[in-house]
Amino acid sequence: MKLSIISLEEIKKIVSSIDLLPIIEQGFVAYSSERAVVPPVGELLLEKGEVHIKYGYIKGDEYYVIKIASGFYGNASLGLPSGNGLMLLFSQQTGEMVSILLDEAFLTDTRTAIAGAIAAKYLAPKNVERIGIVGTGIQARLQLMYLKPVVACRDVLVWGRGEKQLTEYRDDMEKHSFQIETTTDIALILRTCNLVVTTTPATSPLLLHSDLQGVQQTGIHITAVGSDTAEKQEVDAAILEQADVVVADSISQCLVRGEIHQAIKSGHLSQNELVELGNIIDGTTTGRTSDYQITIADLTGVAVQDIKIAEAVYRSRLQK
Amino acid sequence: MKLSIISLEEIKKIVSSIDLLPIIEQGFVAYSSERAVVPPVGELLLEKGEVHIKYGYIKGDEYYVIKIASGFYGNASLGLPSGNGLMLLFSQQTGEMVSILLDEAFLTDTRTAIAGAIAAKYLAPKNVERIGIVGTGIQARLQLMYLKPVVACRDVLVWGRGEKQLTEYRDDMEKHSFQIETTTDIALILRTCNLVVTTTPATSPLLLHSDLQGVQQTGIHITAVGSDTAEKQEVDAAILEQADVVVADSISQCLVRGEIHQAIKSGHLSQNELVELGNIIDGTTTGRTSDYQITIADLTGVAVQDIKIAEAVYRSRLQK
Repeated sequence: MKLSIISLEEIKKIVSSIDLLPIIEQGFVAYSSERAVVPPVGELLLEKGEVHIKYGYIKGDEYYVIKIASGFYGNASLGLPSGNGLMLLFSQQTGEMVSILLDEAFLTDTRTAIAGAIAAKYLAPKNVERIGIVGTGIQARLQLMYLKPVVACRDVLVWGRGEKQLTEYRDDMEKHSFQIETTTDIALILRTCNLVVTTTPATSPLLLHSDLQGVQQTGIHITAVGSDTAEKQEVDAAILEQADVVVADSISQCLVRGEIHQAIKSGHLSQNELVELGNIIDGTTTGRTSDYQITIADLTGVAVQDIKIAEAVYRSRLQK
Repeated sequence: MKLSIISLEEIKKIVSSIDLLPIIEQGFVAYSSERAVVPPVGELLLEKGEVHIKYGYIKGDEYYVIKIASGFYGNASLGLPSGNGLMLLFSQQTGEMVSILLDEAFLTDTRTAIAGAIAAKYLAPKNVERIGIVGTGIQARLQLMYLKPVVACRDVLVWGRGEKQLTEYRDDMEKHSFQIETTTDIALILRTCNLVVTTTPATSPLLLHSDLQGVQQTGIHITAVGSDTAEKQEVDAAILEQADVVVADSISQCLVRGEIHQAIKSGHLSQNELVELGNIIDGTTTGRTSDYQITIADLTGVAVQDIKIAEAVYRSRLQK
């Protein structure tokens, strides 16, 4: 078997040429129907950073995948990106390594954004009037990019703490045919948008329940992407309590990290109120049933997304 | 930082050109003096094989290492080696990947053989009269090769189940200036050799206590390499009970796998009788004190060996 080493540049080209949304959807469906084997995440803590090893496979598929992703938060001061990593693809039949994807965390960013698009596809109100983006970083950009084929709306309100970052975000995203307004007043997000994506590493709620007044007349969907640890939180637990549908990418994982973890810990939510994204995709569970509902999706990141995106990039390259 | 991808061919050349024994010794010393961070082994079980992920670092070193090693036991019928894998080297300062070592399990085989040589260096009787090798596979060959600089003896008795494998082993190893006798009678190993290395995946004892009669007059050292799981066992637990010194490569790991695990389980040994290889190397613990003693080293394989060998190969290549 020939080993194929794929550079970041080539990975970016491939990703821009294939429709990954249905592929990642299949991953969530496999996960929620218990066809995925995903052992606990390996973790290595160092003085200057941390490393996570996510790995697993979908039964009956061709490959298993090991993903290594690190965050070294002092890198910025050295002019280096904080995120690093790669994905490795091996044969389920023989254990032979078939591909090394030198993605430097790009595929993790991408599969996270695609999960947001999937959540919006199944859960957003029919008429999205304004998209609210919380945060101005890479994920705030990618989430909007991947919403494009899923949602017709091009009106966007972005919230951030700094004017400079907000201006850069507006300039970047207006090139992609969005109309961007910026704000430093977080209350405007819930008051004026009916599809909201949160992308920050906040550790106390940005979106407050008190700003949700009047939403019962219009409905809203919130996708919470930023919180992926036991500490982070972007959304007031009272919003999860009021929500008509609370969706987890992985129920077992959301019990120990993310918004759902926080809301359960503070007594605003109980485990039996949760539904899983893969079950909404394959129709075994009902999601939104009316435009006037409040829905929320908590995305903490599941190894099936890595498995599916790595496999898709490798397959697409094989065909060339 | 430039990523360096090192092929198996190049790895083999480098390994043959550097003295790895003192480097692996340093790894054991770092481990036994608690300067190594080695999280639990990650494990992925598939229908046709299994994958282990070993990773960690030595505090104050430059790199951290992740090793992926798989065994797919049906591969032989496809004409493929059962073992596969690679090692990855990353900066402890920035998380950047500095090297991919495409070793296909070669470095694991090598560092295992070197650990055997280290055990012999510190624990074998002064005058090794005959080396006994149990098994005829790759590890049975490598163990003997790496004993060469450590032990003057060139007389070898090898035990195996099949005449064909024994003949092949003899032909191969006689090229390396050993005088090889072969046997299918395992009792001759303990009766005629005073340095023994076991290298099989046996799950019930091959070396029996009843064949150890008379050894008190001559002394013996046994290095048990084959047993690295909770199930495997090559050495009668009564031999460990009678031994004057029982050495573990990692005490914590040997409590749950290998010969020591078996002997403790059957009540022949207790944890407080164990000493650790790294402590013998750095002199903080006494090993053999007389030629007439029975010593045994149980080698289950520790991630510090992988860390040290990967680092050494990469550094040696840098200098070229």
